[in-house]
Amino acid sequence: MTEYDTVPAAVDDEEEIPGDHPRYQDLLTRHRIEEGVKKGITHLQGMHAEGRGSAFDYLIGEETIESADEAARVAAATLLLAETPVLSVNGNVAALVPAETVALAEAVDADIEINLFNRTPERMAAIEAHLKQHGATEVRGLEADASIPGLEHARGTVDADGIYAADVVVVPLEDGDRAEALGRMGKTEIVIDLNPLSRSPQVADVPIVDNVIRAVPNITAHARELENASAEKLQAIVEDFDAAGALTDAERRIRQGELE
Amino acid sequence: MTEYDTVPAAVDDEEEIPGDHPRYQDLLTRHRIEEGVKKGITHLQGMHAEGRGSAFDYLIGEETIESADEAARVAAATLLLAETPVLSVNGNVAALVPAETVALAEAVDADIEINLFNRTPERMAAIEAHLKQHGATEVRGLEADASIPGLEHARGTVDADGIYAADVVVVPLEDGDRAEALGRMGKTEIVIDLNPLSRSPQVADVPIVDNVIRAVPNITAHARELENASAEKLQAIVEDFDAAGALTDAERRIRQGELE
Repeated sequence: MTEYDTVPAAVDDEEEIPGDHPRYQDLLTRHRIEEGVKKGITHLQGMHAEGRGSAFDYLIGEETIESADEAARVAAATLLLAETPVLSVNGNVAALVPAETVALAEAVDADIEINLFNRTPERMAAIEAHLKQHGATEVRGLEADASIPGLEHARGTVDADGIYAADVVVVPLEDGDRAEALGRMGKTEIVIDLNPLSRSPQVADVPIVDNVIRAVPNITAHARELENASAEKLQAIVEDFDAAGALTDAERRIRQGELE
Repeated sequence: MTEYDTVPAAVDDEEEIPGDHPRYQDLLTRHRIEEGVKKGITHLQGMHAEGRGSAFDYLIGEETIESADEAARVAAATLLLAETPVLSVNGNVAALVPAETVALAEAVDADIEINLFNRTPERMAAIEAHLKQHGATEVRGLEADASIPGLEHARGTVDADGIYAADVVVVPLEDGDRAEALGRMGKTEIVIDLNPLSRSPQVADVPIVDNVIRAVPNITAHARELENASAEKLQAIVEDFDAAGALTDAERRIRQGELE
């Protein structure tokens, strides 16, 4: 028996979701994505992608597994060592973790750049406003004066002094083509994705197999804990990381994990 | 490496999806659900539920596994033996398999009844029109003159001479509370659901762990093959079925199945 499907279909405000509900996180995620679609922030396909992620999260056990926590710590070290880190935000990330993204950007001194698979001026503006409501002061992605080589127009559009020039990019919930193209540009990529078998985490330098709702604040917490660490220590954390091992561990958890 | 995420975000018409695309079925499903939302047939939450199903389907291998095929045959036998079978249709079923549902209803002489978790007159009318466009002559669910005991108003609303009086109900993609309440009414339930751990398939007499896009036509094919079978033979098929074994088999496939 499982609580998997015993959730109310919808609430009007996230405050209405009981904090002790056994599926609180899933309800919160679903509610935020639905609000995102209604506000014009999230594409309809984002609702589908979120549902897909929720199934993987369910199989993982809806918690941050140890290898994902380690990857989040490596991500924090990588970001603290970076010269020009950028956090890429799409419609799902904006809907799910707007304040959490702003907090991470502040903790590691990164820029925030909007990048959409289905780019329209209306969605770009809606997401910019939403991020600013959640504390962002500067939001990149609207200049759109550079392109990632090898991607057709809209998906490859970036800011010349943003993602195009970045040494480290955090691309949560990224599509595989774009993750590969950013890799070919020589960028260090941190990917957050609940499916360890999809291409984006497989091409990432630091794949974090976790729900963005947990992973983004977790990277921030690690960054705060590491903020006074030496460059040597940060470098050692990065070098010790086994990306392939983290993916294998997450797949094992999905395949063989025990459900209560 | 996987093709999981290498799909275009959207097409305008399902004819545009290449038939030989390795993820054809997933693309088709996603497109139909998105169209359903746009037409007012499918609730936004349906897009999320479809995404969740798509992850389970991916782990199953996006094919009808042997135990699901056997369950579809048992469902066909059960429907052929029924006195007053009803196929329950919600917003996802209407969007995904409208013509296939009409074909199954004809093959087993069943009624079709719309039943929505989020019931509004507009959605009821949109789904009725959509089913009629796909060949349905009579669609139940609009009388709404009876209730399933133990469910609050809208979710429990049914037709007195439809689901309320039915001996066998096919409830694809059903929520757990409603599946349990129908079971308490003594109905024989056939559930189609991609998550073998969710409550609906667990309380079903005949759980089919398969994508509705494959399962509904598959039940129809079995029904046509069995249409001249004796009642004794049909009864034997039903009695031989091991529902718990089918669920265990599907879970094993999800947990340990090999991906190419």
